[in-house]
Amino acid sequence: MPGFPAVWLRHNCPCPDCRDPVTGQRLVAISDIPIDVVAAVTDADDGSIEVVFTPDGHRAVFGRGWLAAHALPDDGSSLDGSAGNPDPRTEDGKRLWRAADLDVAGLPGAGWPDYVVDDAVRERCLDAVARLGFALLRGVPAEPGMVTRVAETFGFVRETNYGRLFDVRVVADPANLAFTSLQIPPHTDNPYRDPVPTLQLLHCLRDAAVGGETGLVDGFAAASALRAEDPWSFRLLTTTAWPFAYADKETELRSVQPLISLTPAGRIAGVRLNNRSMEPLRCPPREAEAAYAAYRRWDALLARPEFRLTFRLTPGDCLIFDNTRILHARTAFRAAGPSAPSAGGERHLQGCYADIDGLLSTLAVLRRACR
Amino acid sequence: MPGFPAVWLRHNCPCPDCRDPVTGQRLVAISDIPIDVVAAVTDADDGSIEVVFTPDGHRAVFGRGWLAAHALPDDGSSLDGSAGNPDPRTEDGKRLWRAADLDVAGLPGAGWPDYVVDDAVRERCLDAVARLGFALLRGVPAEPGMVTRVAETFGFVRETNYGRLFDVRVVADPANLAFTSLQIPPHTDNPYRDPVPTLQLLHCLRDAAVGGETGLVDGFAAASALRAEDPWSFRLLTTTAWPFAYADKETELRSVQPLISLTPAGRIAGVRLNNRSMEPLRCPPREAEAAYAAYRRWDALLARPEFRLTFRLTPGDCLIFDNTRILHARTAFRAAGPSAPSAGGERHLQGCYADIDGLLSTLAVLRRACR
Repeated sequence: MPGFPAVWLRHNCPCPDCRDPVTGQRLVAISDIPIDVVAAVTDADDGSIEVVFTPDGHRAVFGRGWLAAHALPDDGSSLDGSAGNPDPRTEDGKRLWRAADLDVAGLPGAGWPDYVVDDAVRERCLDAVARLGFALLRGVPAEPGMVTRVAETFGFVRETNYGRLFDVRVVADPANLAFTSLQIPPHTDNPYRDPVPTLQLLHCLRDAAVGGETGLVDGFAAASALRAEDPWSFRLLTTTAWPFAYADKETELRSVQPLISLTPAGRIAGVRLNNRSMEPLRCPPREAEAAYAAYRRWDALLARPEFRLTFRLTPGDCLIFDNTRILHARTAFRAAGPSAPSAGGERHLQGCYADIDGLLSTLAVLRRACR
Repeated sequence: MPGFPAVWLRHNCPCPDCRDPVTGQRLVAISDIPIDVVAAVTDADDGSIEVVFTPDGHRAVFGRGWLAAHALPDDGSSLDGSAGNPDPRTEDGKRLWRAADLDVAGLPGAGWPDYVVDDAVRERCLDAVARLGFALLRGVPAEPGMVTRVAETFGFVRETNYGRLFDVRVVADPANLAFTSLQIPPHTDNPYRDPVPTLQLLHCLRDAAVGGETGLVDGFAAASALRAEDPWSFRLLTTTAWPFAYADKETELRSVQPLISLTPAGRIAGVRLNNRSMEPLRCPPREAEAAYAAYRRWDALLARPEFRLTFRLTPGDCLIFDNTRILHARTAFRAAGPSAPSAGGERHLQGCYADIDGLLSTLAVLRRACR
């Protein structure tokens, strides 16, 4: 078969000896395939393709449609980028954006009642998370615990030391600056954890009287801009493993990962950044100096207004975003006044983590109806 | 300060303006640090080190012990490998093993009653998972649901489409070959999922009359052997992104990842392999042929008896293993006989997934007592 190596055809033989008819899983092992396998191809009467393998005489029948759908790119073409097979988890499967590309008055998402009953609405929202990195559900009942209910509509909560869900509000003796009224610059959550939670949900129960606005930055768009503007810094950030850590009384987490991670083919696959939890870099002084210079450039680029989408979460809003791609931020806030601390304006979000595998699976199953 | 760049010292200043005294989190941002920062170092009277930064006049005081503990390696030294800062999640933080290195009669682990009451025993077991990749608890009550109780002793269950826990036994119309009595060659679970569950637990409730033995392979040791014996195949397996997929009525999962993943510094950080769910490789024919040849070598190496630790799980045994490193396998099995299908010998395991961040956190906290 021109274009298909014999070993490729043999490993993908669909016959019931090679692939279990019930589970669809492969039975033939690479070690079952003769090392000198050769394929002789003929057109079958019914329009399918028959392949007879020597030396073992195995026979495979492939549908023409299946072979066309799995056609290999020509020798000499590049595997990089969108060469016919984009990886949906990398920049190749995303629509990168800057703030001006999106309309704050009509952010991707839907109203909760529609989302719950209408598969097409749900598909559109989950597709926004997959391609844009986030979606906003409005009108989710502003009741404690709803945030995990939202996660369960498309996947599974990732429980951590912070619980199945966590409260984001001002507390005395906070273990984390998130639980103060300070501004928080763009960051990803839990960079000190491996694997990081790939999705985060934030559900607004009460908003602040003043401030507390949410900012989102498309980290893939920003990383792509850095690569274009300053390839030297980009390269350093993708190759320098930076330690992150978090500790409290019951917990001690640590990871060592680059701020921008790439696939082996060099495509942007993840960003990880939280100034609060970055540990001292441990590498020779000259490399450390270079890495800090690159981090400074990256930080400055992420702070540019052109990348930052700003909007206000109001009670009932639930934001779902890809924590491997989207950096989130908030402005400082304050309640109505010290004389009326509980009279409103006490910003209260509930958050939870989840994973994007479940979301993408739900999206793929919703799309089956359209095939 | 010789050995520490000024920007490094400034970013790690421990003063209450730079680091929140309550949370321990960093407040100073890289953008707060003058780009032309210079450090002037003096010895303070109390034996600490005082640093005054120009041009902003900021003053930092570092303990000598802290600086010594965070000393940077010399310029010119390599970041690779064990250069003073091994990443515990890579091969550098592991004890690699072959079957002969371990004693099947005394596998790392403990009895459940001791594990539950004795922190030192628990620390030893969790350390075995961290360094050897697995531990075996014996005498865990052979009751349904106990497997998640075991996971909760050190971390959090990762719920997936298979549930919070899953049953591994023979069923009619299995969605997965795991649920048959067939032999299963060494594999990692859920390679079609990103992030993969980093830990798996398997708890034996009933064993088979004949067969059904468990095999474990240290994938890091095997990958390290491949790198030494066949660097060409090793390189191809670390650079070729291979698609994996799983689908059933409610689920459709897919990932595209290399079979062996490396850190940016080239250290082994993960293995991923399951012949059952490998999708047709999509790359130019010559590259596909080379990748299949490399996969064949890898598969043959993994099948060598020297790498495979074989033992029998008996009721009450609960195996905990690192699913990013350890490949697991089982031999085919059969019940006592068709005339007595429920008279015993109906192999039944319960499994669940979890993540190693929680386990490593629990281990670190247990170790605080020893500091």
